[in-house]
Amino acid sequence: MNKRGGRPPQRRSGRGGRPAAQRGHGRPSREGRAGPKRRSPDDLGGDQVEGRHAVRELLLIGRRRVLELAMSDDVDDSPVIAEIKDLAEDGRIPITYTSRAKLEAEARTEAPQGVIARAHSVRAVNLEELAGNTRTGQPPFLLALDGITDPGNLGAILRSAEVAGVTGIVLPRHRAVRLSPAAVKAAAGAVEHLDIALVGGLPTALSKLRDLDVWSIGLDMGGELSVFEMDAADSAVVLVLGAEGEGLSRLVRDRCDLIASIPQVGALESLNVAAAAAVACFEVVRRRS
Amino acid sequence: MNKRGGRPPQRRSGRGGRPAAQRGHGRPSREGRAGPKRRSPDDLGGDQVEGRHAVRELLLIGRRRVLELAMSDDVDDSPVIAEIKDLAEDGRIPITYTSRAKLEAEARTEAPQGVIARAHSVRAVNLEELAGNTRTGQPPFLLALDGITDPGNLGAILRSAEVAGVTGIVLPRHRAVRLSPAAVKAAAGAVEHLDIALVGGLPTALSKLRDLDVWSIGLDMGGELSVFEMDAADSAVVLVLGAEGEGLSRLVRDRCDLIASIPQVGALESLNVAAAAAVACFEVVRRRS
Repeated sequence: MNKRGGRPPQRRSGRGGRPAAQRGHGRPSREGRAGPKRRSPDDLGGDQVEGRHAVRELLLIGRRRVLELAMSDDVDDSPVIAEIKDLAEDGRIPITYTSRAKLEAEARTEAPQGVIARAHSVRAVNLEELAGNTRTGQPPFLLALDGITDPGNLGAILRSAEVAGVTGIVLPRHRAVRLSPAAVKAAAGAVEHLDIALVGGLPTALSKLRDLDVWSIGLDMGGELSVFEMDAADSAVVLVLGAEGEGLSRLVRDRCDLIASIPQVGALESLNVAAAAAVACFEVVRRRS
Repeated sequence: MNKRGGRPPQRRSGRGGRPAAQRGHGRPSREGRAGPKRRSPDDLGGDQVEGRHAVRELLLIGRRRVLELAMSDDVDDSPVIAEIKDLAEDGRIPITYTSRAKLEAEARTEAPQGVIARAHSVRAVNLEELAGNTRTGQPPFLLALDGITDPGNLGAILRSAEVAGVTGIVLPRHRAVRLSPAAVKAAAGAVEHLDIALVGGLPTALSKLRDLDVWSIGLDMGGELSVFEMDAADSAVVLVLGAEGEGLSRLVRDRCDLIASIPQVGALESLNVAAAAAVACFEVVRRRS
């Protein structure tokens, strides 16, 4: 994923023109492992799911088709493993038992916790859908990620966002990582719940969202006010987070309606971006509760 | 570190009786690599420091002696690397340049980012010191960790705690991980600033802290109130966090003055423990600002 993020954007933009028939639909045995070249423009990845909580949520929510499970033959009989087996049986999803060594060789995260699932990719939704009515009746609460490439951070952010009731995620098509196995595992099932939009560029997306009455708040050092002063109780809002170290890109920062900062009390310069995301998202929860 | 955490406590408790002369003081060339058997009871580990931010902070703060640096000979000339070289020169700390492959073989984290330092261990302080006056004049703001064994989570928690102005950390001697290279790297320099106490058991420590007028708030599901209702503005407070999945142990939970919960708005059951720590710590910041 990091490797893909480093490629020049023009190498990926050509893929959108490929006809739908070539996108791998209807060929499940290959689609589960489809390489980057086969990806359609709304394909967010996430087809290899590792880790117990991520796999359990994948099966439980059933938003995308699960093709097969691989399980280590010495897996323990914890409640979550029993639940995974039951859900697979209910859904008639084949389980292949394999040695722990073989499973770990197939894994693309450090600790698959004895289980790997292959599934259809997560599909992106339109930005307009994210700005529309939410299931809860509350104003939309979106999170846009500007250049966050570390899969562990991306997954951790998605997990916190889901628990905080974020109603949609905005990822730039060219700069962001997609849902690698490490991101999906760290997200602990959040990708099965969240609606995610892929956009051509964040500055344009923020302008579009403003036209749709969604107010944008960038999180960055040197903001005009503290996150504890931002009032997102009654407005549709998109929080915008920048990459660790670099912060928000200039164009994105300029396009935000407001820049807010998390107060720094100690000596270190900054929070990890996933910690900053949790603090900011739960500040919206506090305002809305 | 996880391996050590898994050992029965009695195997470690005998080490405290070893005379100070055998603890490796004054033998820097060995002390930097001292194995578990040489540890004194107030030795928190942290003697191998990897990653740019962690090494820069180690050198900059100078709270513990740095023995040597190893640097990859193809390391880039980013500002933080230049700063590390300057600080090492100022402190007359030898730098050994080595191949990237050799450096990565010596590393105990996945990405040492071209630099590894060996230093004296981080030393624990007394619990009573943590409950005393703080440098800022504000009431003590402590964080106690109950059975958190994942080094990445431990480090992330320490980093967020430092930025939030936490004045001291309480770790149980037997159950907690110590400062492994992965924890120190994730802490991004926080271990150079934070005072950390090692205690025999958390329930007893919480009682002692209560006698010292420090109020304990456990973070757990099913709390009597939301973290947004806890008022820690004017009181000395210790937030108590449990292990991911298991939560607070029964004895610790019973000893807390109050149990508070982070509201769960979405579908997933719980936040990652490091995200929960960030949210709770910054809620104290909000109340105190």
